[in-house]
Amino acid sequence: MNPKIEKLIKQFAKLPRVGGRAAQRIVLALLQDKTGRAITLAAALADAAESIRPCVACGCLTDAEFSSCEFCRDAGRATGQLCVVRDLGDVWTLEKSGVFHGRYHILGGLLSGAAGTTPDDLNIKTLPGRIHDESITEIIFVLPNTVEGKTTQHYVKNELKNCNVEFSELASGVPLGGDLDYIDDGTLSLAFGRREKI
Amino acid sequence: MNPKIEKLIKQFAKLPRVGGRAAQRIVLALLQDKTGRAITLAAALADAAESIRPCVACGCLTDAEFSSCEFCRDAGRATGQLCVVRDLGDVWTLEKSGVFHGRYHILGGLLSGAAGTTPDDLNIKTLPGRIHDESITEIIFVLPNTVEGKTTQHYVKNELKNCNVEFSELASGVPLGGDLDYIDDGTLSLAFGRREKI
Repeated sequence: MNPKIEKLIKQFAKLPRVGGRAAQRIVLALLQDKTGRAITLAAALADAAESIRPCVACGCLTDAEFSSCEFCRDAGRATGQLCVVRDLGDVWTLEKSGVFHGRYHILGGLLSGAAGTTPDDLNIKTLPGRIHDESITEIIFVLPNTVEGKTTQHYVKNELKNCNVEFSELASGVPLGGDLDYIDDGTLSLAFGRREKI
Repeated sequence: MNPKIEKLIKQFAKLPRVGGRAAQRIVLALLQDKTGRAITLAAALADAAESIRPCVACGCLTDAEFSSCEFCRDAGRATGQLCVVRDLGDVWTLEKSGVFHGRYHILGGLLSGAAGTTPDDLNIKTLPGRIHDESITEIIFVLPNTVEGKTTQHYVKNELKNCNVEFSELASGVPLGGDLDYIDDGTLSLAFGRREKI
């Protein structure tokens, strides 16, 4: 195989959710496309990589020409609520759902013994300052409902014990449309224990 | 969402085997990567797009500095056998298996009423010339075992009826490791009809 094509396939294969076979199909589609899709994609990627950087306050990716991101610049978002999330993908998911109208704080990962992620790897230290400067009254943890998510939540909450804020987390239970056949025992036991009167 | 990021996600989402969610994860991984993976990928893609073009003889992608591809340049590949395939992905699959050591001819698709692909869209016209110039004695069809694959094979074979060559196709039957539970009726019926004495 041509070395340039091989190099390109290897780079695509390293991307999340793309395997070796898919990388081959992607590279074939791009290089055989007569409308110049490869050039367009290369230019868009280079442009974004050079002009996008994390917001110094919350960690959301933003245009480098602004000092902070669209959420931190928007005064209407200064609701006193701060949503603590794992990464920008979770911010996009929340924005799409339209349930939250405050600001975000991206940790950049979760505490994990297996992955060797320590508190120093996460964006935690700037939180007390933000709570003070932005008059935050409620910290809402929207983290994965897993051991790592809960460990991280517990750690962050403890770090903020001297801040005068309320803390909340998402409700746990059976998802909408969730069939009992596909619910794990942990969720079932938790939903049973928290059953609600009707 | 930032318009540059949105544009990039849309472009990735159009690639084969990449959906909207996967495109988001890919763009996030690229833009948050601190080793500059986005820049490297953009450069490799632009480089390949500018310097790779189809071989005039067989249609395989090749470096633009050569007049023909690695297979057509290799005199050791002039075995008199020509493998007719749908696209370059199939060439890579065959090369990986190591079963074929001759040259290839890429049709660039299959005849399809549904997709509106006509003989003029396929790389068929140059075949008689190649058979003559390269002293081809056997045309091996390695096309999908589908209605479209067989229709295309029949059409190409008919176009070459005045050429003095033999034609062959892959054997049909139950794949190795194929469990009867997962074999479709068509394959089963065909394999039964062609059962071999043991």
